[in-house]
Amino acid sequence: MTKLEPRLIEILQGHFGERFSLAQAVREQHGRDESAYPMTPPDAVVFAESTLDVQFLVQQCHAFKVPVIAFGAGSSLEGHVLAFEGGISLDLTRMNQILTVNEDDLMATVQAGVTRNQLNNEIRHTGLFFPIDPGADATLGGMSATRASGTNAVRYGTMRENVVNLTVVTAQGEIIKTAQRARKSSAGYDLTRIFVGSEGTLGIITEVTVKLYPQPEAIAAAVCSFARVEDAVNTVIQTIQMGVPIARAEMLDGLTIRAINKHSKTSLREQPMLFLEFHGSPQSVKEQSETVQALAKDFGGEDFEWANQTEDRNRLWMARHHAYFACLQLRPGCRAVTTDVCVPLSSLSQCIRDTLEDFSQSSLQAPVFGHVGDGNFHCLILVDPSSPTEMQEAERLNHRLVERAISVEGTCTGEHGIGRHKMELLRDELGEPALELMRSLKRAWDPLGILNPGKVLI
Amino acid sequence: MTKLEPRLIEILQGHFGERFSLAQAVREQHGRDESAYPMTPPDAVVFAESTLDVQFLVQQCHAFKVPVIAFGAGSSLEGHVLAFEGGISLDLTRMNQILTVNEDDLMATVQAGVTRNQLNNEIRHTGLFFPIDPGADATLGGMSATRASGTNAVRYGTMRENVVNLTVVTAQGEIIKTAQRARKSSAGYDLTRIFVGSEGTLGIITEVTVKLYPQPEAIAAAVCSFARVEDAVNTVIQTIQMGVPIARAEMLDGLTIRAINKHSKTSLREQPMLFLEFHGSPQSVKEQSETVQALAKDFGGEDFEWANQTEDRNRLWMARHHAYFACLQLRPGCRAVTTDVCVPLSSLSQCIRDTLEDFSQSSLQAPVFGHVGDGNFHCLILVDPSSPTEMQEAERLNHRLVERAISVEGTCTGEHGIGRHKMELLRDELGEPALELMRSLKRAWDPLGILNPGKVLI
Repeated sequence: MTKLEPRLIEILQGHFGERFSLAQAVREQHGRDESAYPMTPPDAVVFAESTLDVQFLVQQCHAFKVPVIAFGAGSSLEGHVLAFEGGISLDLTRMNQILTVNEDDLMATVQAGVTRNQLNNEIRHTGLFFPIDPGADATLGGMSATRASGTNAVRYGTMRENVVNLTVVTAQGEIIKTAQRARKSSAGYDLTRIFVGSEGTLGIITEVTVKLYPQPEAIAAAVCSFARVEDAVNTVIQTIQMGVPIARAEMLDGLTIRAINKHSKTSLREQPMLFLEFHGSPQSVKEQSETVQALAKDFGGEDFEWANQTEDRNRLWMARHHAYFACLQLRPGCRAVTTDVCVPLSSLSQCIRDTLEDFSQSSLQAPVFGHVGDGNFHCLILVDPSSPTEMQEAERLNHRLVERAISVEGTCTGEHGIGRHKMELLRDELGEPALELMRSLKRAWDPLGILNPGKVLI
Repeated sequence: MTKLEPRLIEILQGHFGERFSLAQAVREQHGRDESAYPMTPPDAVVFAESTLDVQFLVQQCHAFKVPVIAFGAGSSLEGHVLAFEGGISLDLTRMNQILTVNEDDLMATVQAGVTRNQLNNEIRHTGLFFPIDPGADATLGGMSATRASGTNAVRYGTMRENVVNLTVVTAQGEIIKTAQRARKSSAGYDLTRIFVGSEGTLGIITEVTVKLYPQPEAIAAAVCSFARVEDAVNTVIQTIQMGVPIARAEMLDGLTIRAINKHSKTSLREQPMLFLEFHGSPQSVKEQSETVQALAKDFGGEDFEWANQTEDRNRLWMARHHAYFACLQLRPGCRAVTTDVCVPLSSLSQCIRDTLEDFSQSSLQAPVFGHVGDGNFHCLILVDPSSPTEMQEAERLNHRLVERAISVEGTCTGEHGIGRHKMELLRDELGEPALELMRSLKRAWDPLGILNPGKVLI
């Protein structure tokens, strides 16, 4: 049964009508994400259609001291949107309008529920595109809230670099805009960057202005096989160190390739591989790809193969973006304990090698792949979530990996965020005094603790 | 006479010895910056040599409730380092050690007092460079604190994008590190970006890790004259919109060129000009420069001239970097009321045109130049600071300019910061609720208000 006060239910029903739901199916749908946590539904769900809707809801939740959890595509990986302390799930997916496309400024302003694919489809005719691509078709609000990135970050940056400003509803129910639309600014504290990555704990993002980029004149993609993971990784590291502006540089280990072959009906050699992409003028793409092909050869790369046609390229990146789901199918019915450490490039090769060695001694399967140009890689530790032994083993591997990353000045998460799952690891990474600064910011901006409680900070 | 308590003086003399100074000359030296404010000296000056020195000082200032003002090169333009409420100026220029250069990671960690030129001189042999270049040879601590940028930002970003992590002493005297050294991270609130641009009001930056870049294989620079400022500006805007990765794109108006000719003994045509630079492979530089040369021609650009030799190029950029001082010499004994709005590219041309029109009706001279690829431009309104009429007229022009910028979703400062001078304009730009969020962050992290009081927030 719901723990919400009858008076609050009445107020929300009055304002939202059928867009306020206590139905079990709806609540359960909002009590799941892509993590291995058991379903943890909220007490109710509200479907917002405007910033004013969000403001109304937050003001009520503030008055009644009820948790409010922003919910987008539900594709988060660390338990970000689960209602561990009950409260109301605020579904923003109906806020799916593209508000303005400023072609001359290379910017678009969208409502928080717009997904990255929707944005790219709707702006295709302008010759511009939005590059940030986590695997899932996440919403731009959610991507802002977790500081998402993806395969293109090595060239175009992450949400940190690509959000121009945000409209946010604060815990007190004020509507603010974090910045103007200038490409740079030194005007006061960087409110935009404070909300980017705050995972719904400091305010509710309702609108996002992002940078767009001219579609490259030429694009070339390629794959290349390697005998050892470290050879693939070192090819990319040298590429970056030489200043080649590579657009995508993904490493996938043999197990991941096996999963992809099965899921996407490809016939790639089941060895460590690089998926690469180059953007620029035809001449510059040719130069870049020649340089990288030569580097790959130095590291024993084989079967360097071009995907020149748009369809071939799309198939390649579709396969990459489905790697997460493909890997889940290696073991029917399993869930994944995911990790995504990010380390300085100089330590990447050794860190991946040690991790694979560690996994090889475990009873669990764990495909490894990632955005190696950024030093970021993911491990999907495949578990039966109902087996305490397996969950314990997965956490042991995860902790060892994060410890390894932190010991070389890396981070416990390159792009997935802290959510519920990595709160202790965040403290391990930055230490108690830094965490205390974060806590005091949280207390200052959300003194009642109503915004996505039980996440990010312990 | 100093207002510091004798007991505090005794403690600081005990710890710092001769590095604690009450001497008038030293205090006066720390009571000046490049703004038009009258000298406003602190009660004392401390020269720190380590993070532990800074910690000790801040702990004492916290205990005695005395303001502490971080001081670097003293090149700020908006009164950032002036002691309007007395207290202690914390001179960080002796913290000038380059601590680590991680060539393979394209990063360096330096103490806050290292200047950008020092860093570039000391890493030259590695083949890497640090691109951010405000005109002055500022310290990296100061540049972080004001979210500085400069001519290269159009290609390489600002301090916001290029600071990897910071070591900071908090108002309570805790030493924290804001992040690890990974190129990206989703681990908790973005402490790094909160301190970048906080102007010494949230903590004292003592160490900075920045990104480095491979020195480009080829560099080409060029100048080009235009009949009208808007033609120069539009050339750059189209360059950006076409996705040409131009490295520098500076516009200087005729008056600025006149000042430069006089100061740097050049003989440039005294008309609006572009100073351009291209980085990349020889082939890519050739392509980029041909594209831009063609665009310039479309907009009536004349005398397109290449600076192919390193010395010619250095002379060109030296002249650009000295533009500020050159302009001051247009009127001996004057000071400048500087402004540096930044607007969306689509509004830049009109905004500059309206500003020049406004200035043409004023009694004051005001050269205009800037980083037009970012939408950022500076106006140096030349004043006799002892004339209230002139100061009033300068402020009138400044306010009208900022109002104009804000009306097209621009910002009151692209790279100089708020300091003392733009506190009201910050409120005009972002509104009271956003400002209140900033204030509540300030109160949470510096409840006694000892860190650079009277700056950024009203």
